Amino acid sequence: MESFRVRSLYDFTGEANTAELSISAGQILTVIRTDVGEGWWEGINENGRSGLFPQAYVERIESSQPSTAPTPTLPIQNNVGWNAPQAQPQTQSSAPQEDDWDDDWDNDETYSEIGGNSAAPVENIYSNDRNLNLNSVNSDFSVESGINVDGKGTVTKKSLNRFSSYVKSGLESYILGTVNPTPNCYKIRIRKEGEIIRWDYITSPYTVQIASPKKATKMGGLKSFIAYHVTPSFSNIEVSRRYKHFDWLHDRLRAKYNILAIPPLPDKQVSGRYEEHFVEHRRMQLQEFINYMCRHPVLSQSEVWHHFLTCTDEKQWKQGKRNAERDQMVGANFCLQIEAPEKELLASNVEVTMDININSINQIDQALKGLMQTVVDQQKKCSNMYKRELQRVGESFFALGTAFESAERGMFSDFTTGIKRLGSTYITIGKLFEDQAKSDWQCLADKLYIYKGITGCYPDIFCLQKSAEQKKRECERNVQVQQPQLLEIRKRTDVLTYAVFAELTHFHSEKDGEIKQAMKTFLEEQVNFYKNIVSKLEETLQRFQ
Amino acid sequence: MESFRVRSLYDFTGEANTAELSISAGQILTVIRTDVGEGWWEGINENGRSGLFPQAYVERIESSQPSTAPTPTLPIQNNVGWNAPQAQPQTQSSAPQEDDWDDDWDNDETYSEIGGNSAAPVENIYSNDRNLNLNSVNSDFSVESGINVDGKGTVTKKSLNRFSSYVKSGLESYILGTVNPTPNCYKIRIRKEGEIIRWDYITSPYTVQIASPKKATKMGGLKSFIAYHVTPSFSNIEVSRRYKHFDWLHDRLRAKYNILAIPPLPDKQVSGRYEEHFVEHRRMQLQEFINYMCRHPVLSQSEVWHHFLTCTDEKQWKQGKRNAERDQMVGANFCLQIEAPEKELLASNVEVTMDININSINQIDQALKGLMQTVVDQQKKCSNMYKRELQRVGESFFALGTAFESAERGMFSDFTTGIKRLGSTYITIGKLFEDQAKSDWQCLADKLYIYKGITGCYPDIFCLQKSAEQKKRECERNVQVQQPQLLEIRKRTDVLTYAVFAELTHFHSEKDGEIKQAMKTFLEEQVNFYKNIVSKLEETLQRFQ
Repeated sequence: MESFRVRSLYDFTGEANTAELSISAGQILTVIRTDVGEGWWEGINENGRSGLFPQAYVERIESSQPSTAPTPTLPIQNNVGWNAPQAQPQTQSSAPQEDDWDDDWDNDETYSEIGGNSAAPVENIYSNDRNLNLNSVNSDFSVESGINVDGKGTVTKKSLNRFSSYVKSGLESYILGTVNPTPNCYKIRIRKEGEIIRWDYITSPYTVQIASPKKATKMGGLKSFIAYHVTPSFSNIEVSRRYKHFDWLHDRLRAKYNILAIPPLPDKQVSGRYEEHFVEHRRMQLQEFINYMCRHPVLSQSEVWHHFLTCTDEKQWKQGKRNAERDQMVGANFCLQIEAPEKELLASNVEVTMDININSINQIDQALKGLMQTVVDQQKKCSNMYKRELQRVGESFFALGTAFESAERGMFSDFTTGIKRLGSTYITIGKLFEDQAKSDWQCLADKLYIYKGITGCYPDIFCLQKSAEQKKRECERNVQVQQPQLLEIRKRTDVLTYAVFAELTHFHSEKDGEIKQAMKTFLEEQVNFYKNIVSKLEETLQRFQ
Repeated sequence: MESFRVRSLYDFTGEANTAELSISAGQILTVIRTDVGEGWWEGINENGRSGLFPQAYVERIESSQPSTAPTPTLPIQNNVGWNAPQAQPQTQSSAPQEDDWDDDWDNDETYSEIGGNSAAPVENIYSNDRNLNLNSVNSDFSVESGINVDGKGTVTKKSLNRFSSYVKSGLESYILGTVNPTPNCYKIRIRKEGEIIRWDYITSPYTVQIASPKKATKMGGLKSFIAYHVTPSFSNIEVSRRYKHFDWLHDRLRAKYNILAIPPLPDKQVSGRYEEHFVEHRRMQLQEFINYMCRHPVLSQSEVWHHFLTCTDEKQWKQGKRNAERDQMVGANFCLQIEAPEKELLASNVEVTMDININSINQIDQALKGLMQTVVDQQKKCSNMYKRELQRVGESFFALGTAFESAERGMFSDFTTGIKRLGSTYITIGKLFEDQAKSDWQCLADKLYIYKGITGCYPDIFCLQKSAEQKKRECERNVQVQQPQLLEIRKRTDVLTYAVFAELTHFHSEKDGEIKQAMKTFLEEQVNFYKNIVSKLEETLQRFQ
């Protein structure tokens, strides 16, 4: 084949000691081999280093000749000990994981952890960290066996099962139609309004409050945990949920809706989990997660989510849990639940729209990460550096006032009192910095955290869409594929693309609503904060008139 | 002798490799020997370390027995190469110093450096650093030869000439009446109003402006310097002065008025002396120095100061310079120019008042140093850290706005524009931090610098007063001293004490006036600054409504 050049769209970190090539977004690569298989290409970077990278992570930049798409082979059956994937959810939980859960879950049948009664559930130290990397999910594919590199630097396809995660994604089975939709399953509609492709509106909006986290213990105080009280507005029945329940829910959501952007849970934390400010902050973070769920046209209607929100009975909980874990309509197969517009999408239009979105989501993701980092830093600095600096100013003024007093022998002048007051004022302002950090910087950070998690989901979603398109093109070129089957494949690909577009529309509307509101609240808080400083200083100034 | 305990009033840093003992203010010492001579005592600190320290730096804390004051010997004639003292001015400039000046001063007679015409004077790189430690003057006695310590840790008086600086201070000659007042010399009155002892009021107050510093060169550009234009309100005739002229003036003032607190000059600086912001800042600092001089009842009437302010003729300048350097009424002998109340001071009252003042001035000095450091730090941080932090916040918001734009394909929403505006606002606020630092922190720092210099003068002043009292007591005990002579000695000691009290009164009135005004101005600037932030943020908030 003739080599051609591509530009990478995302960062990709190659596994160490394999033939994989780490690439960074925006890099130019020369592709020297497209028939590696399973979505891999081989190429050379600008430094002359060669290796494998996912085709879906790059875009071609010299299209004078038609794209020579690779012909992926059917993925090798994953019977060699596929790791419990961190990024790509499984359609079925592996046995040990299930056991883990049951261990924690079922040993103590005496107490209900599910109902509104928060008397006694169990908390384990997080011995599994399946989800620890939730937020760095983008390029998080693990490979079980190494990749064999021959002497000439070319790579055999043998054991190259890293992209068999696509199998796990359900993409193959969905596009090729090997899974049939569950009869009478709940249908999700996508609407097309002018140029806008969107999820159908939520007909019965509701809210969910998470409140009064309390530390509870069981087994005579040996085990303790934090129980959150979750109350949906549609039932007004409180249920008790622990972080591990949220965590299980989140796993299920990610498995089922891998073409949707799932809001992230707050990070796991090993130490200090029972400290009051941590618990309260986590409650606020979980509230942000819940709010996003409630606002999402698809997620808010999700069965597993409703199970989580409403189940108060231990046995029903277990049943619902097993049902969710056995759900066949997961991954790309979730598209079977979607009722999309009939109108066929124009391949070229799709590609342009996708490219624009890939580019802008990537930019937004980077900007959100940057802002989030800045905001978290400011939050910390308010409680530390700024507070300390202003208190030092205050203490220095106060010390001068005290020193002046020593010359006054008990007849303290207004000036001396004033200068001490000036000192106290700056100490108070220092404290203000600490206090306000919670209401402006931290609130903004919690909001940005959700959206950073959302944009972080998109590379995988884009990847799926690109892979679907590629699969479709393969089938179009494959003479063995019959016309009716091809029509079905095209339709299914379109449904998936419609879903991605609808999800993008949702993101942008969220952005214009929620992020805007968050910015506004932040600004209002900042204005109040500085006004507060002004009034404190003006009050002190009175003493010097 | 029986040992007794003392508390140190000031820090004293002993010379390395001598018998001197470093002490810090508030430390308790056990005095084991008071007959070391020349104002030195030997004692042991709490760590068991023994050595010599100046008696005037400590106060006795167990006075069950009468103070066994040492009997100082007459100081050894300083013919073994006494260093040009940094702290204690000389009554006559040493020859090399004079030559230095003349070198710099007289070589080029073509140009006047003295008149209002700033066309052409000379600037040398500061090759002499006689005055570099002006502000650490407190314990700045240098000793030419080392102190001999015998095997038992006691010290011989041999070569112990460090305190012969008292000779230089003119104290011996003043108290013992070896210098006669210049006939018809200008008399300075001290008034007693109730309990208040103060300098007579200034009858013709005036101000002096220092303006438009300009870089000038001579010798074909080989030498360059900054010429400041100094205009007193009483003459309205501009004179041109360089920093080195101020420096010479300052030396003269410190020599003549060692019982007064002379405001400090801005520090010497070797590099960056011609940079605009440095020159402008130094102008402001010199203005503060000048303002203090003008407000001082004694200094504002000083002959050498008037010479400095008014002389426009090169020859007259040289004559005035030589006159000033040959002035006999310097150091304690300046008291001969003072007309103090006739009323004899009560020794016990004086001691109590002195102790209170020593304590409070010491506290104020420490507090001013601390505040000054804090204020200078804040000033720097405004231009660096705070500015940088806020600009980072601004840039992060702006980047998010730009990223959002990328999804809008040219149809920029109000929200996107708003978020970019929010970014710009924080960048502007960062710049505000830098700008305002000049009008609040720096102004306050310049004011504090003057008063820190003033309080820094007091330990030496207190030292002189204590030495005078001690000299008086010695004479009272000395049977050879005749009654009329003793009366004169008592009177002279009282005049010196009256002068110290008057100077203290001036300090406190300055403090209540000038420092209060400086604090008020600072607060007003801070209020305006934070109001400015509020208005910038509120303006931006409009975009989010």
